Amino acid sequence: MISFQKFTEHHVPKIDKHLSFQINSIEAPSILKEAMNYSVAAGGKRVRPLFLLAVLDVLKVEHCEALTVGSIIEMVHTYSLIHDDLPSMDNDDYRRGQLTNHKVYGEALAILAGDGLLTYSFGELSRLKTVPAEDKLDLIRLLSLAAGAEGMVGGQVLDIESERKLISVKELETIHINKTGALLSYSIEAGAILASADEKTKKSLTDFGYHIGLAFQIQDDILDIEGTTEILGKTAGKDVASEKNTYPALLTLEGAKSKRDWHYNLAILSLRDITKEPGLLDEMATYIVNRNK
Amino acid sequence: MISFQKFTEHHVPKIDKHLSFQINSIEAPSILKEAMNYSVAAGGKRVRPLFLLAVLDVLKVEHCEALTVGSIIEMVHTYSLIHDDLPSMDNDDYRRGQLTNHKVYGEALAILAGDGLLTYSFGELSRLKTVPAEDKLDLIRLLSLAAGAEGMVGGQVLDIESERKLISVKELETIHINKTGALLSYSIEAGAILASADEKTKKSLTDFGYHIGLAFQIQDDILDIEGTTEILGKTAGKDVASEKNTYPALLTLEGAKSKRDWHYNLAILSLRDITKEPGLLDEMATYIVNRNK
Repeated sequence: MISFQKFTEHHVPKIDKHLSFQINSIEAPSILKEAMNYSVAAGGKRVRPLFLLAVLDVLKVEHCEALTVGSIIEMVHTYSLIHDDLPSMDNDDYRRGQLTNHKVYGEALAILAGDGLLTYSFGELSRLKTVPAEDKLDLIRLLSLAAGAEGMVGGQVLDIESERKLISVKELETIHINKTGALLSYSIEAGAILASADEKTKKSLTDFGYHIGLAFQIQDDILDIEGTTEILGKTAGKDVASEKNTYPALLTLEGAKSKRDWHYNLAILSLRDITKEPGLLDEMATYIVNRNK
Repeated sequence: MISFQKFTEHHVPKIDKHLSFQINSIEAPSILKEAMNYSVAAGGKRVRPLFLLAVLDVLKVEHCEALTVGSIIEMVHTYSLIHDDLPSMDNDDYRRGQLTNHKVYGEALAILAGDGLLTYSFGELSRLKTVPAEDKLDLIRLLSLAAGAEGMVGGQVLDIESERKLISVKELETIHINKTGALLSYSIEAGAILASADEKTKKSLTDFGYHIGLAFQIQDDILDIEGTTEILGKTAGKDVASEKNTYPALLTLEGAKSKRDWHYNLAILSLRDITKEPGLLDEMATYIVNRNK
């Protein structure tokens, strides 16, 4: 079995290259392409495409358009970061270690770069060459649910609504299932669709995606406390400073870690329904809860 | 033949009702649905869904999901208006005779309501029940091109870039072909797809869409000078006040009218390749260039 580190080292440059190729292929005003590319090329962990590729690896399926679909999900993720960072939202100056999009290109162009990335993603899914039409429609339908008002956009609204209010752990969970979990889970579902996985496997992968998505977010909250701005590439301690509802704030740091590990264990458990032997997805899950950025 | 006025009176309430039904069916935070619905329910001329329905009428095809597709296009149009009105873009306070979305719900929610409408639209196209899979993928692909960086979003960027610069008529045309024309033409193309029109008919309709889209925009520019805020439902004279590049500014008012009529005539001419007798699309085109709001 290839190690997760080697897997990452092998695939991340390919993902980066493919993203750059996709943006370059768009016929659009050069300043818009530049703004779209600025945030897409800023790096990041590429967790979502890696999850998609890892699903295919675990299911022992090769798919020549996996990189394309993975890159599309990364674009949708990047659009959401650009819009979330805007002054009227989280008002962040740094992201992935560089100035946020609106700090460089201004608010108008940042909004439009996000709009452009989102809109392009759906078109690109419709153009896949080797995926059956019904599967493409499934990929589009599920992306719309994961990224839209019923998923990520809805989660962001709940997050804004909960600011400076005391909310319950259950309410916090609902925010994160939508805001971060939905698109992360989608990357796993998309891998299962490309692999033509059976319903039982899809169900196990969906469970895995649900739990690892929550573990991912809890670790994000923990890193806001334990991480450093330098390593994170974004301002550490911002959640505490802005009295944001986070897992550590509601459960204490220890409580948050215990909840993270609980979700991690359930995620690992659902993988055992697919393969007896631990594989790449196990390693990715372990990375998610141990990462320092 | 049913008159365009009767056609409008018959269909606009149905479009409004269907839009409201669609938004209500979304499972999302209530404040987000409210913000999405606020702009969608604000009325407007519903030109794009009416064009789609008129294409089907002219081609003598009934389609039980025409209203759904028409409403989807109206949602994408509404998303673009919400984002265009933002303080960092056109900074408009009024739209369709009521306060703009961000004036009521704040910028963050306005951006997210737009994002939600756009994302929902692609999902809704993927869910059409009676349209063949390949046609649905065509509808999605073409919507992505018309609305995205290669169309509407790109046009908005060009528009922003041209502010306070003297541009040529050709450059102005490129802006409008993308900013307004692309989605208007899409509504006509979408009608042709639902009608399973042959390639020759599609080509004639595309030509019609191209010219009527430009005529539409030129009339918009003319109305900024000749219209009143009360009838327009948005601030008249704003283009002149902000020294915006418009057809009247570049060609004089008379020159703009003559260019509008030139495109109108070419639009009408392309319809004659489809039917010898003038029909609803002729009437719609006439309405477009004579409207006072």
